[in-house]
Amino acid sequence: MATFIDVHSGMKGVTHDQLLRAHQEDQKLEQKEGVRFIKAWADPSTGKAFCLSEGPSKEAVLRIHQQAGHPTEEIYEVPVAVE
Amino acid sequence: MATFIDVHSGMKGVTHDQLLRAHQEDQKLEQKEGVRFIKAWADPSTGKAFCLSEGPSKEAVLRIHQQAGHPTEEIYEVPVAVE
Repeated sequence: MATFIDVHSGMKGVTHDQLLRAHQEDQKLEQKEGVRFIKAWADPSTGKAFCLSEGPSKEAVLRIHQQAGHPTEEIYEVPVAVE
Repeated sequence: MATFIDVHSGMKGVTHDQLLRAHQEDQKLEQKEGVRFIKAWADPSTGKAFCLSEGPSKEAVLRIHQQAGHPTEEIYEVPVAVE
């Protein structure tokens, strides 16, 4: 299982409800690909959003985002993490 | 207190030890600005890194990153978060 951060653009003005709905769309589909969408953050002023997920591959994360209607080119596998 | 995600580039091949050292440099300085660096993730293959922090302002996060020797233009305030 790998960890991923993906980046979305074009979400200027996004509200908590809108982000929650998008995240829940991903979560409804995630079992099909063995992905788990853990958390998402958004900046309404620039329209950037970041999702943290775990799954078998970048392609699996992308397929869920595509099926949920919000694909992104920017999916990074982040095997290095510190706190 | 606000939440921020910042994005760094140019860290191709970054190791766990290198990311940990960079994160600890930030943490040593964070009290000066009332910032807390919570977590960082990196993708050694593309050289992208993401830091999650809390603090009073984007400028405060930037000042710590500058003083620690790894400034970035890309700091996003992410007031909208879901899980």
